[in-house]
Amino acid sequence: MTEHIIDPTIVEAENSKREADLRRDYESLGERLDRRGVSIDAIKAKVADFNVAVPSWGVGTGGTRFARFPGAGEPRDIFDKIEDCAVISQLTQATHTVSLHIPWDKADPNRLKQAASRFNLGFDAMNSNTFADAKGQLQSYKFGSLSASDAATRQQAIEHNLECIEIGKTVGSKALTVWIGDGSNFPGQTNFATQFEHYLDAMKAIYAELPDDWRIYTEHKMYEPAFYSTVVQDWGTNYIIAKELGEKAFCLVDLGHHAPNVNIEMIVSRLAQFGKLGGFHFNDSKYGDDDLDAGSIDPYRLFLVFNELVDAEERYSDFHPAHMLDQSHNVTDPIESLMLSAADVQRAYAQALLVDRAGLKAAQEGNDALGATQALRLAYRTDVEPILAMARLENGGAIDLLATYRAAGYRQKVAEIRPAVEAGSSGIV
Amino acid sequence: MTEHIIDPTIVEAENSKREADLRRDYESLGERLDRRGVSIDAIKAKVADFNVAVPSWGVGTGGTRFARFPGAGEPRDIFDKIEDCAVISQLTQATHTVSLHIPWDKADPNRLKQAASRFNLGFDAMNSNTFADAKGQLQSYKFGSLSASDAATRQQAIEHNLECIEIGKTVGSKALTVWIGDGSNFPGQTNFATQFEHYLDAMKAIYAELPDDWRIYTEHKMYEPAFYSTVVQDWGTNYIIAKELGEKAFCLVDLGHHAPNVNIEMIVSRLAQFGKLGGFHFNDSKYGDDDLDAGSIDPYRLFLVFNELVDAEERYSDFHPAHMLDQSHNVTDPIESLMLSAADVQRAYAQALLVDRAGLKAAQEGNDALGATQALRLAYRTDVEPILAMARLENGGAIDLLATYRAAGYRQKVAEIRPAVEAGSSGIV
Amino acid sequence: MTEHIIDPTIVEAENSKREADLRRDYESLGERLDRRGVSIDAIKAKVADFNVAVPSWGVGTGGTRFARFPGAGEPRDIFDKIEDCAVISQLTQATHTVSLHIPWDKADPNRLKQAASRFNLGFDAMNSNTFADAKGQLQSYKFGSLSASDAATRQQAIEHNLECIEIGKTVGSKALTVWIGDGSNFPGQTNFATQFEHYLDAMKAIYAELPDDWRIYTEHKMYEPAFYSTVVQDWGTNYIIAKELGEKAFCLVDLGHHAPNVNIEMIVSRLAQFGKLGGFHFNDSKYGDDDLDAGSIDPYRLFLVFNELVDAEERYSDFHPAHMLDQSHNVTDPIESLMLSAADVQRAYAQALLVDRAGLKAAQEGNDALGATQALRLAYRTDVEPILAMARLENGGAIDLLATYRAAGYRQKVAEIRPAVEAGSSGIV
Amino acid sequence: MTEHIIDPTIVEAENSKREADLRRDYESLGERLDRRGVSIDAIKAKVADFNVAVPSWGVGTGGTRFARFPGAGEPRDIFDKIEDCAVISQLTQATHTVSLHIPWDKADPNRLKQAASRFNLGFDAMNSNTFADAKGQLQSYKFGSLSASDAATRQQAIEHNLECIEIGKTVGSKALTVWIGDGSNFPGQTNFATQFEHYLDAMKAIYAELPDDWRIYTEHKMYEPAFYSTVVQDWGTNYIIAKELGEKAFCLVDLGHHAPNVNIEMIVSRLAQFGKLGGFHFNDSKYGDDDLDAGSIDPYRLFLVFNELVDAEERYSDFHPAHMLDQSHNVTDPIESLMLSAADVQRAYAQALLVDRAGLKAAQEGNDALGATQALRLAYRTDVEPILAMARLENGGAIDLLATYRAAGYRQKVAEIRPAVEAGSSGIV
Repeated sequence: MTEHIIDPTIVEAENSKREADLRRDYESLGERLDRRGVSIDAIKAKVADFNVAVPSWGVGTGGTRFARFPGAGEPRDIFDKIEDCAVISQLTQATHTVSLHIPWDKADPNRLKQAASRFNLGFDAMNSNTFADAKGQLQSYKFGSLSASDAATRQQAIEHNLECIEIGKTVGSKALTVWIGDGSNFPGQTNFATQFEHYLDAMKAIYAELPDDWRIYTEHKMYEPAFYSTVVQDWGTNYIIAKELGEKAFCLVDLGHHAPNVNIEMIVSRLAQFGKLGGFHFNDSKYGDDDLDAGSIDPYRLFLVFNELVDAEERYSDFHPAHMLDQSHNVTDPIESLMLSAADVQRAYAQALLVDRAGLKAAQEGNDALGATQALRLAYRTDVEPILAMARLENGGAIDLLATYRAAGYRQKVAEIRPAVEAGSSGIV
Repeated sequence: MTEHIIDPTIVEAENSKREADLRRDYESLGERLDRRGVSIDAIKAKVADFNVAVPSWGVGTGGTRFARFPGAGEPRDIFDKIEDCAVISQLTQATHTVSLHIPWDKADPNRLKQAASRFNLGFDAMNSNTFADAKGQLQSYKFGSLSASDAATRQQAIEHNLECIEIGKTVGSKALTVWIGDGSNFPGQTNFATQFEHYLDAMKAIYAELPDDWRIYTEHKMYEPAFYSTVVQDWGTNYIIAKELGEKAFCLVDLGHHAPNVNIEMIVSRLAQFGKLGGFHFNDSKYGDDDLDAGSIDPYRLFLVFNELVDAEERYSDFHPAHMLDQSHNVTDPIESLMLSAADVQRAYAQALLVDRAGLKAAQEGNDALGATQALRLAYRTDVEPILAMARLENGGAIDLLATYRAAGYRQKVAEIRPAVEAGSSGIV
Repeated sequence: MTEHIIDPTIVEAENSKREADLRRDYESLGERLDRRGVSIDAIKAKVADFNVAVPSWGVGTGGTRFARFPGAGEPRDIFDKIEDCAVISQLTQATHTVSLHIPWDKADPNRLKQAASRFNLGFDAMNSNTFADAKGQLQSYKFGSLSASDAATRQQAIEHNLECIEIGKTVGSKALTVWIGDGSNFPGQTNFATQFEHYLDAMKAIYAELPDDWRIYTEHKMYEPAFYSTVVQDWGTNYIIAKELGEKAFCLVDLGHHAPNVNIEMIVSRLAQFGKLGGFHFNDSKYGDDDLDAGSIDPYRLFLVFNELVDAEERYSDFHPAHMLDQSHNVTDPIESLMLSAADVQRAYAQALLVDRAGLKAAQEGNDALGATQALRLAYRTDVEPILAMARLENGGAIDLLATYRAAGYRQKVAEIRPAVEAGSSGIV
Repeated sequence: MTEHIIDPTIVEAENSKREADLRRDYESLGERLDRRGVSIDAIKAKVADFNVAVPSWGVGTGGTRFARFPGAGEPRDIFDKIEDCAVISQLTQATHTVSLHIPWDKADPNRLKQAASRFNLGFDAMNSNTFADAKGQLQSYKFGSLSASDAATRQQAIEHNLECIEIGKTVGSKALTVWIGDGSNFPGQTNFATQFEHYLDAMKAIYAELPDDWRIYTEHKMYEPAFYSTVVQDWGTNYIIAKELGEKAFCLVDLGHHAPNVNIEMIVSRLAQFGKLGGFHFNDSKYGDDDLDAGSIDPYRLFLVFNELVDAEERYSDFHPAHMLDQSHNVTDPIESLMLSAADVQRAYAQALLVDRAGLKAAQEGNDALGATQALRLAYRTDVEPILAMARLENGGAIDLLATYRAAGYRQKVAEIRPAVEAGSSGIV
């Protein structure tokens, strides 16, 4: 039986305050959707089935190169992190998997598995880390990892990825996500072609060891930590990688990893069309890889991404991209941010499900640009909160995520157990 | 024998004023390069062999949606344009080909060929136009051309491209460049996947008629004239197109068609590495597709592009990308801008040839980031004007392009023959 | 009595189909808002009072430098345009003023006034045009207008602005909007300081003739039509201008005139705080000055702008910024776009009025970042369409703007009267 | 007498290998400049007088939020840093001042002064730090410092700045630079107007204690560490601050702190024109605040900035902006980067001095856009390295900075004394 970290009676008490209003709102929304020929219960069922993975590192407070300001009750290790993830899962009922980052989350894999299964949590994709030097590692990644000019460094990075696969096998993961920071800070520092050859060779060595039922996800990013060039800089390079590697290789789209003004939903469509859309790192951004909460800056963009996903679901068979949050929580309680972000990802999905696809298609074919865009906006403007809340309620989650979490006093409780961490100046400017 | 529009005695008179200084500067630079182990004459020979095509439309004054302010002596038709191109070719000795745009330059192909051959000019890639409606055409491109939802519109656009190939065969062109403005202005206006399928199908129909010794170039552009999405929006999509079409299909890179901050030289490297770099539309930009003079805003970026080209020349066999200027001259005499831009493209090439590639490679392999970037900067900082000027002088061109052109009074002469065009408010805001 | 261009019985017939549902939705929303302590009728009253001006040029089809594709029934002159504006006003009940552009709309001012008063329309700010050469004007604006190096050109531009004031006095306008395209396309083309001195001197000459009860609005824009530098390039320069000119001078904010990623709502706040926010040109953009329909690309940004306006209304006395749509309708019926955009501007206003300001302030003071942003999102997610529709219904407008307009067949009717315009290739690339 | 850290005989030995070539190159360049009417010795004298401050923190290896990879021989404290700065000063003869950051460089001020005076170094502007929490400080800056909603936090930040002034008085600084990271990560997290009021009030309290012969510099930055809004986000806000504070307040321009595509040289011109240009933090960037080496990405932009400075020098009296490098050296030896960057800043200055200002002005007034921009490019293309090298040689510096520094083996020597620092994963993603 699933353990609950938050006392279920608290959840029930909070829900009971809101349930009558929710039912009235759900009914009223149902009636409005019915007029549009949409069954609210069908939408709710799909929303209830939706899962987005939580990254283990997301439950700790993030920071910038300038400083990190820890919050109260910071998780001390992966086992604390799993407990925090369990809280998110319990209240949202939308985040049943955790994504591990090695070596940060390194521990006895069997113990990891047991810790997660207590809360009915599974493990999503494994994440390797060759963008920082682990304690005691022989070669430094200062000048690159999988694409480094030094062969021993590349080999070390390959082996680290193979180790991630091994851990993943034990804990039940079925995917490896590879994001590297490799690139350069100066024109000429690296030769683009040579560097990419090194990268492809190293990835092929990893791919060769990938189990048959696994997928490998490569993630592109325009810049940071490299500031002149980045090896996997955009979806074009990412697509080439997935093609070069083979059938089990797919591209991962992080919403904050693109050049300014880029039409991300179109990239999603292209990758889906050519069979290489692996999944998402959801977050939001205004400037660069800001790693802000999903939907907090441009919620319509998130909806447009889901509009492509719903379209692709109908269009392609065997289409099942991975969903993961990947955010940096610098000024909020990470649990609060992750809960609301999971709900906001569901929200975008629910809104996209409301689009009148037949009407949209007719408008598109008739060159009725305004009619077509109104079909999207009508769906987007619908306040689907009652659908999300009802799905949570019916699955044992919280109608009001923030109020319930705060009422439960979880953060204060762990703050008593977990020692305070001193704020750090990185000394980097 | 080649006809000269500018009286050669004027060129000689202007050159004779500068020749002594040039020879002294060339010698002095030769000595400095010699210290670096570089033969100035070898560089000069390569520069002298370099050709960049002039676009026929570039010799007319450009404009914006807000207004166009014509200059004096605007060319009235393609034959006037060919004469203007001949002036550029005569003085720069670097632009021996002209690129035609159909239907703007439509005329009896044999007459076109004769007009060009008078000045020893050849024809570069043919350019089709389905981003504007030609007078009397049956279907409008308002909602797209090769990717339109309407089949008759797509067919019309295909046939127009086939017509461009036919004209090109007669005039001696060996390539077709396809740039379309297709896209959308509103989320939902088009279905990305369907639209791209239409585009690919149409391009395959064109490709099927491409002569065996031709190339087809597709050109990507982030936005404009479409302001929400563009079918061929970036090099990723462009690369997929070239792969889908076949061996004769290549990607064209216009330096102003990218998202802000994008590392263009890296895209050049990737396309070259995967055998799909077709060539360039040279120009410069600060904001969008500004179509400013090549090297006028960020000359180091132009050099870095040529650094990739020189690297690729050594690395890949059968590497011969096409070079064309594609600029909009709103406030300058277009002939002046095109002459200086041709020279600036040569300049970047000459500088890239000066890079100590062995030293660069050693620095790259040794992770000496500063040493590597200094290898580039040492080459870039070299003032290669004496090399360019000597190459021109020896081929009958002008040492000082601007001074010689102005001394010849060409613009005033054509202004007497060609009637003034009234400045126009487009009425678009 | 106000004339109606659309037969009121058609409006009534369309409304009667939807009125019962609207009343049910309004009631249901009212109940939900009541729970939040908000009176729906109070919001509706504010929305009903809201006015946004329609630009005369907006009812014609827009275009780009590449092409313009006219629609059916294009207005032939300012009197046709006024009729189109009257349709928008009749159905939306939100656009009771028209903004004129001189010389495009030049006509006998008294006739203009009469034409507008038939439909109970007034005139908003006058717009001068020195970014294009008018037929027969002596000096060209090719190299600038109010900031040109040539004194006669500057004087001509000053006089044109004074003429706009004169026309405005007769038609009842109370403001002059000055947007110039002046700038440069090449580093060095102009001296920034000298050019700005010229501009300020010219503006002071115009300001000196501004009637006491008028305002002068200056509008900044990052780029286009100038592609290296622009005289009034951002709000910093715009603010300096308004300070230099005096009390009647204010800054106009066009949502599409900013650098990528800029936080526009913060600029709105700064200008309001320092008493220089004059008003808005509403539209939306993804890349540059795309002039897309307001709220069509990033509706949350439009809401955040209105969130600042509602905050400023409470904070500052005598705060009454001007509202105008400024869009380019390239692929839609301009009347349809302008109607929906007017409604979308109202929508953002209504949503901003729903923000729980006391709760927001408490969250801000308590550093509850998530609580604060949720206060905004709760308001934004509310589907306020019933409020907008009810306000329209009660004022004689249309519940469903698009359906009613289409049912009335206005476009087909004017297409029979107004001759078709041929699609034009500008010949500019 | 000035102590030298690098043995002068090494410098002399290295110089002697290059002196003959340098003299020949200097003479040859002198002759070419003479033809343009420019005295090479006059330029050299100005270059030799040019000083740019080195930031104390710049001599340590930088990093990103993902990782920091230390180099060998990292400075342990401010006294090691001063020695590193002395090396830079000795070889470049262009960096006679050091800029301190408190509390990082906190030490007995008299000891600081003595340490610097050994090497004839002075102290440039003091830098306060309220973007990170110092060990043991009472209030956290997690939610802001000078603009925090909490009054005690603001007071603490004010007092820290006053302490910086006190330290500065003793060491002989004459300026305080204030850069804060304050802003917000979510729409609504802060009220823009209230937050800015807090900031202005706090700055006024600091300004009130500023000695009469000091300047206060405020520095704007678009984003990072705050990712939705930043209090001092651009030059517009920065200008308002300087005006609100008074005569001793000026704006600091960091070249990497602007929105994409912004014309920075124009901002420089505007601030100079309105008397508020305080100075620069020189560096370069391709994407965000990349803090790359000055002139390494876009050297022409650096030249255009200096073109404005030379223009302003002639135009305004009492114009003497501060120059400081502010770079993050992640993959290079910081001393090497800072030496070359100092030289590159001098290079841009030397090139700007070569501009034919009378010819430029004539071209500008005659609307000869191409002639004007060629005047700039002619100056920029001049390889002024012989001027820089001769100025260094004559002042006891190194002709070839990199070769001489490497020959001296400084880094290896300090690596023997200063203990290795372990590479750190920040654990932030």
